[in-house]
Amino acid sequence: MARYVFDFSEGDASQRGLLGGKGANLAEMTNLGLPVPPGFTITTDACRAYLDTGQQPAELVEEVDKHLAALEERMGRKLGQPDHPLLVSVRSGAKFSMPGMMETVLNIGLNDESVEGLAAISDNPRFAWDSYRRLLSMFGSTVLDVDRSRFDQALDDLKTSASVETDVELTAEDLRQLVATYEQIIVEETGSEFPQQPREQLDLAVLAVFSSWNTERAKLYRRQERIPDDLGTAVNICSMVFGNLGDDSGTGVCFTRDPATGHRGVYGDYLVNAQGEDVVAGIRNTLPLTALGETDPTSYEELLSIMKTLEAHYEDLCDIEFTVERGKLWMLQTRVGKRTAAAAFRVAVQLVDEGVIDLDEALRRVTGAQLAQLMFPQFDKDGGKRELIATGMAASPGAAVGKAAFDSATAVEWAANGDAVILVRRETNPDDLSGMIAATGVLTSRGGKTSHAAVVARGMGRTCVVGVEALRVDLKQREIRTPDGAHVEEGDLLSIDGSTGEVFAGAVPVTASAVVEALLESPGTAGNGSHASHASRADGESNENLEAEDKGDHAELIEAVQRIMRHADAVTRMHVRANADTPQDAQRARKFGARGIGLCRTEHMFLGSRRKIVERVILARSDEQRDSALQELLPLQRDDFLGILEAMDGLPVVVRLLDPPLHEFLPDLTELSVKVAVADALGKPDEQAEALLKEVQRHHEQNPMLGMRGVRLGLTVPGLFQLQVRAIAEAAAELKRRGLDPRPEIMVPLVGDVKEFAIVKEQSLSTLADVAAELGTALRFPIGTMIELPRAAMTAHEIADEAEFFSFGTNDMTQTTWGFSRDDVEAAFFPHYIESGIFAVSPFETLDVAGVGRIVAVAAWEGKETRGDLVVGVCGEHGGDPASIHFFESILLDYVSCSPFRVPVARLEAGRAKLEAADHTSF
Amino acid sequence: MARYVFDFSEGDASQRGLLGGKGANLAEMTNLGLPVPPGFTITTDACRAYLDTGQQPAELVEEVDKHLAALEERMGRKLGQPDHPLLVSVRSGAKFSMPGMMETVLNIGLNDESVEGLAAISDNPRFAWDSYRRLLSMFGSTVLDVDRSRFDQALDDLKTSASVETDVELTAEDLRQLVATYEQIIVEETGSEFPQQPREQLDLAVLAVFSSWNTERAKLYRRQERIPDDLGTAVNICSMVFGNLGDDSGTGVCFTRDPATGHRGVYGDYLVNAQGEDVVAGIRNTLPLTALGETDPTSYEELLSIMKTLEAHYEDLCDIEFTVERGKLWMLQTRVGKRTAAAAFRVAVQLVDEGVIDLDEALRRVTGAQLAQLMFPQFDKDGGKRELIATGMAASPGAAVGKAAFDSATAVEWAANGDAVILVRRETNPDDLSGMIAATGVLTSRGGKTSHAAVVARGMGRTCVVGVEALRVDLKQREIRTPDGAHVEEGDLLSIDGSTGEVFAGAVPVTASAVVEALLESPGTAGNGSHASHASRADGESNENLEAEDKGDHAELIEAVQRIMRHADAVTRMHVRANADTPQDAQRARKFGARGIGLCRTEHMFLGSRRKIVERVILARSDEQRDSALQELLPLQRDDFLGILEAMDGLPVVVRLLDPPLHEFLPDLTELSVKVAVADALGKPDEQAEALLKEVQRHHEQNPMLGMRGVRLGLTVPGLFQLQVRAIAEAAAELKRRGLDPRPEIMVPLVGDVKEFAIVKEQSLSTLADVAAELGTALRFPIGTMIELPRAAMTAHEIADEAEFFSFGTNDMTQTTWGFSRDDVEAAFFPHYIESGIFAVSPFETLDVAGVGRIVAVAAWEGKETRGDLVVGVCGEHGGDPASIHFFESILLDYVSCSPFRVPVARLEAGRAKLEAADHTSF
Repeated sequence: MARYVFDFSEGDASQRGLLGGKGANLAEMTNLGLPVPPGFTITTDACRAYLDTGQQPAELVEEVDKHLAALEERMGRKLGQPDHPLLVSVRSGAKFSMPGMMETVLNIGLNDESVEGLAAISDNPRFAWDSYRRLLSMFGSTVLDVDRSRFDQALDDLKTSASVETDVELTAEDLRQLVATYEQIIVEETGSEFPQQPREQLDLAVLAVFSSWNTERAKLYRRQERIPDDLGTAVNICSMVFGNLGDDSGTGVCFTRDPATGHRGVYGDYLVNAQGEDVVAGIRNTLPLTALGETDPTSYEELLSIMKTLEAHYEDLCDIEFTVERGKLWMLQTRVGKRTAAAAFRVAVQLVDEGVIDLDEALRRVTGAQLAQLMFPQFDKDGGKRELIATGMAASPGAAVGKAAFDSATAVEWAANGDAVILVRRETNPDDLSGMIAATGVLTSRGGKTSHAAVVARGMGRTCVVGVEALRVDLKQREIRTPDGAHVEEGDLLSIDGSTGEVFAGAVPVTASAVVEALLESPGTAGNGSHASHASRADGESNENLEAEDKGDHAELIEAVQRIMRHADAVTRMHVRANADTPQDAQRARKFGARGIGLCRTEHMFLGSRRKIVERVILARSDEQRDSALQELLPLQRDDFLGILEAMDGLPVVVRLLDPPLHEFLPDLTELSVKVAVADALGKPDEQAEALLKEVQRHHEQNPMLGMRGVRLGLTVPGLFQLQVRAIAEAAAELKRRGLDPRPEIMVPLVGDVKEFAIVKEQSLSTLADVAAELGTALRFPIGTMIELPRAAMTAHEIADEAEFFSFGTNDMTQTTWGFSRDDVEAAFFPHYIESGIFAVSPFETLDVAGVGRIVAVAAWEGKETRGDLVVGVCGEHGGDPASIHFFESILLDYVSCSPFRVPVARLEAGRAKLEAADHTSF
Repeated sequence: MARYVFDFSEGDASQRGLLGGKGANLAEMTNLGLPVPPGFTITTDACRAYLDTGQQPAELVEEVDKHLAALEERMGRKLGQPDHPLLVSVRSGAKFSMPGMMETVLNIGLNDESVEGLAAISDNPRFAWDSYRRLLSMFGSTVLDVDRSRFDQALDDLKTSASVETDVELTAEDLRQLVATYEQIIVEETGSEFPQQPREQLDLAVLAVFSSWNTERAKLYRRQERIPDDLGTAVNICSMVFGNLGDDSGTGVCFTRDPATGHRGVYGDYLVNAQGEDVVAGIRNTLPLTALGETDPTSYEELLSIMKTLEAHYEDLCDIEFTVERGKLWMLQTRVGKRTAAAAFRVAVQLVDEGVIDLDEALRRVTGAQLAQLMFPQFDKDGGKRELIATGMAASPGAAVGKAAFDSATAVEWAANGDAVILVRRETNPDDLSGMIAATGVLTSRGGKTSHAAVVARGMGRTCVVGVEALRVDLKQREIRTPDGAHVEEGDLLSIDGSTGEVFAGAVPVTASAVVEALLESPGTAGNGSHASHASRADGESNENLEAEDKGDHAELIEAVQRIMRHADAVTRMHVRANADTPQDAQRARKFGARGIGLCRTEHMFLGSRRKIVERVILARSDEQRDSALQELLPLQRDDFLGILEAMDGLPVVVRLLDPPLHEFLPDLTELSVKVAVADALGKPDEQAEALLKEVQRHHEQNPMLGMRGVRLGLTVPGLFQLQVRAIAEAAAELKRRGLDPRPEIMVPLVGDVKEFAIVKEQSLSTLADVAAELGTALRFPIGTMIELPRAAMTAHEIADEAEFFSFGTNDMTQTTWGFSRDDVEAAFFPHYIESGIFAVSPFETLDVAGVGRIVAVAAWEGKETRGDLVVGVCGEHGGDPASIHFFESILLDYVSCSPFRVPVARLEAGRAKLEAADHTSF
């Protein structure tokens, strides 16, 4: 039989699942001998049982009886005892912190009789009536569902009639009157009296906390934070202590290190003669923690000592709530404290240097998301006045300032002149790539988080804000207007915040990321010796050092990041490669620590000035015409690959053969139709456009994503893939001639059946042999395939017979597995799906393990079963997503590939994932 | 160690895989004591070993030595023995018949010496030299790769110089001269002499037969016939017998029953003084088999007796090749004979009545494809002159004649007047549905076998020809023209053949299918007693009965079909339901034996005059506007369901909630853009069209197949699905009031995650409860889901927690599993893929078992694991495809659903599949 109630002295910190975070830590502190007010915890099991059945389990009632009796015995008074009442708080406490999401009721045990006893005992009638009115309003709104505003209104009315400004000015008599009013409100709203029975108050409050697990705001919070819905909350029943009994009382919050910067030393706030809720409510300004040292040095010293105990015990930065009741210190709560990204890295490495934790543990305590935060430039918070003109979707983080350019050519031109540029477009398309590369930031008025602009910008690490619907981009007038009258002309300065979606007129000052510079300088080697000098610093370090340390903040942070990155690389099993299509990106990726290129897309190589040649390939009327156009592309393609292979000398470069449908290189059907029809209507028929339109119509597809793409194209358009293979081979041969070590790998996209792949492989081997013979060098590179269709995954055991490597294209795999295209559906229904809990997160951001993940796992497993040395990686955008990286580690992929800017994040998470996997498998 | 050679006396008919069909049957006949010329068979193992390594296995050479020596000993002469040569034929013979695809060499053993011996022994120099020149040309072209036309040219030259018309007029001397010429050609073409060594001839011929397995034409044939590429061929070495030794010799082909009609009695052709190849070449007219009875009654009687023996032995109609050499009958080949569809049914039931086989076996011997053939009307082959004007793709079989109508309204109008109509369109879209229903046949100038026209026509059983590119459909002039000058005006009569793709001007006479009428009259009950009267007919039946039987042909065929259908229904495990969207289709399906409706699509219910209301639903600016439009649709929807549920009284009707994207109900983006732009250019802006265009743009999707469809739509457009559920509920309530037994089931399309389904289910249960309360009746119908996305299949175990039934939508599942859309890719690359062997057949026609099938099997299994009584069916087009039906039986689905016209075919194949499954599992 389940046990539903644990005394604080019975639990420990490991029981977060059963006792909730707060309950487990109260138990832990109790067992450490710290001054915790006595009490007990009702388990999450009890909550779940109640939520499932709508009934309190019978055993729960009995166990509460027993524990309450013990508490009363220990405290020497009974709950609500008229002459000397024991009062308790009833607080929620789930496994994962959900601040402010669930209910709390304080001062349980007060009623019309015991309030008088409390007044007598405390010798403070005002305090007693104030406590009672707080109970009535909290209980009324939380347990009895009375609209909270009725209590607030009554309080305001009383202040008005008493002609006072604040609550504290109200007298005991005022508050006694307010209690009567509150009791009246409860009768009016519920038809019943406020329950005078203390035990009834307690039971009702507990059930109300249980129920608060399923309020809409709690559910929404859990969805956002990805906390499972079926955990339930524990309930902590704790004897009340009061910080509002006079100037020898007070309440405070403190941290064992600075959670903002990671500085050593204690930090906190204290409020004299106050209760915890006053601190939260911000009614009075708090004082620094040292104020307690001045008024009550004994309690202060005791607190410092407890902080040391707690940090040593939890081996981490702790966040503590405490109360001083008439000079007696009580600990109300502690937990491992939240912190900023910079603090996370610094504290982790400090603790290593202090000998508290090892580097494995330090690595576990930082996240890729925190590293990413440190890598983006940010607007200076103290940068003075900003003119916010509009807000859109935060698509790619960072802070960018530059001259607004309304087309890619302008952006490229200005950037060439050394100007920072913000590329402003309604939406972007592949032709904007040059502009996006040239720009510091990208701003669009349309599209969602996975629009072309967003995806490409994230890939390139460009700051990007999309879907700023308030912006009217007028390409004729070369200006932007907003409904509020803001007006930006092309060439004016704009600032965009890719972490908030804000768009500012003018230049907002930016702080660059020193972490990025450090990572680029020395991805996995630098700063190796410097951390030893910190090893002597132990936890006894005094506050006097703090000022001196300030100057070293920067260096300390960078060193912390570098040490943890080195350790991640040391423990990792999976490698990290980059998705990079240009020599510049390849160089950058390499500097960021990429161990090769996992995806070099070739489609952008067919754009720009080459578009006309590609058009001739498509419109060719004969094999000769097509071949001649392809021949023109050959030297250009060879140069593309020369640059990338050179930048990645000695490392693998996986080149994906052309993937998109050819008609993407042709004009848009609707635009061209309009052009032709209008010319016709005006009596000036445009024959050239008409001819082109016929071809565009012929190549038009209802669902291009499901059309003539990838290997289908390669098998249907003679010579196309082999042009690319030849260009790769010739480039590699040239580099070998120069004494380099080029390692291209050829990847066939969108394979569904082994026979498709086998044909391309055979042709490619033959092309490689031809070029090798022509140039007199050995050329044999691995030839593998994307696994991006469920059909390929289901037949991976066959495909691995032929393919020399697999690379999961998880974007396309997500599209086909779910049957929706990112472009079409994200804006249309993803927000609604996330709101209604169907998605916890977009499956394009984090891999859907249950569906797509299952398919990927089957293919990885069966592929390796067929070919033991099959290299299996992933090159979809999920390769840079922390949660997805942990899944890929769990199914033992060989590498993940992501955009260059995400490489450090992926390296960090790959290392963490390995530790996690080891934690799971060691026993 | 493998054994590579078997004497004819060592094998039997079960060894087709090893000995090939021909070799196995020669062995079987030998063991039956029939007069087979002695010989031996080289196994397919030997062929595979040779093709794999390019080398004859050493053991093969030894074994051939041994068997050849035994043969020579038995025949009393040696291969090519100068004074009395043993000659042999070398014939290919694979497991599955590949007529004319592989090589044969006759008269092996002749050379410059032995030809003289043969002349002396046969006392027929002309015969000997004719045999030798045949060897030279066959060996030269087949084994030595000499262009066959060189031999043909030399023969023609000789005939010219000899001034004769036919080969038989050439004298022995002419032929001796021809031999010299042929030998010269071989030297010229190969640089070597024709091999005079008989054993060398034999070995080379065997290897040439092996190699002929992999000629292009053989590979192409195998792809078409879906014969695996890795079987290889056996080679039969058989001592030569000659039918061309004079008038006491001859050769023939015969059948134990008429393969065209199934009539009892022997049928065959005989050619006096001829060799088998002359019969095939059609050089002389053959005589009926009875001719042999006149010239050689002994051989004839022996042949009749052998035919009886063979039919009794094979328990089926046999096809026999024989030769009479100077009055001695020799059996050269036998096999179970091919036959027409009608013969297949008649012969199967005859054999049951004759006590030879049981009904299970009769069912195994007919196919759904044969039944389908019998169900289509056909053009009368003797119907006189036809004017063929063009040929397209045969999209839906049958023969249709009617007045050409160029739009649906005209088709509907003329059909209402009682005229047969051929609907002629460039291509069809959902708005053409009324016209297609009204028409007898559908003809389009664009589109492939799975275009809208083709799919819908097949679904409705309408004859359809698509992609007739030669047709210029001129909608303004209301006429069709072809490049050849044919000209058809609207209203002229057209005839289209959906089995050949032919289009004729005028009316070609049609023969209706009596089988369809019979199936409709009595799907599973009629004709129950009549077959007993045939039971007395035994195999001894004489030919005199044939004429009397002719009159009963028709009735016998229909009875045979009905008996086999009844048996299929008796043995089947899977049920057959129909895909039907109208009361008419539902009635028809029920008459064809459907046990319910597996898919009632609702999209067509939103077209036609309702399009305007649907437009208001889409363009609604407020919930009120949308609700008011939905309210208008409610009574219309209710009437839709009333008709269908009434037609299917007492049987399940699975209604699929709306699936296609809403914008399919809006005008086409490009057309509307052109309209707006042209109006604008002409200075007459069309504001209404502009407003509509904005909405069309807003709803436009790049990939509608992967867009806002199905459950996504239902979850996003409030009230839409519940309008449909309410209409179903109200219709069911009304029918219950009338005392009927409506059994609607509600099916949610395009579910990817159980949460999507659960939300719709909860809403639907609530709507059902509402309607039940309003109308005072109990309404609780099963609510289930399509499984048509890989995501749904991979999480079927979760979805089955909520869903009360599954129905596999294998069309969409094929699209997403392969990542291609039927509409976009079929025309573009399927032909190429089938040609290059990537597809054996379109995966939209026959389920791709390795990919889609694996996913379907996982889902079916895991769904039933979660919910033991889960009903699992399939409603994609594969539900009517024989091969796919056998797969669905193998994974134990509960039913298949197909178009009404396919229901009998599916019933037949479901029964056959059950027998096949039983064969596989019994041991």
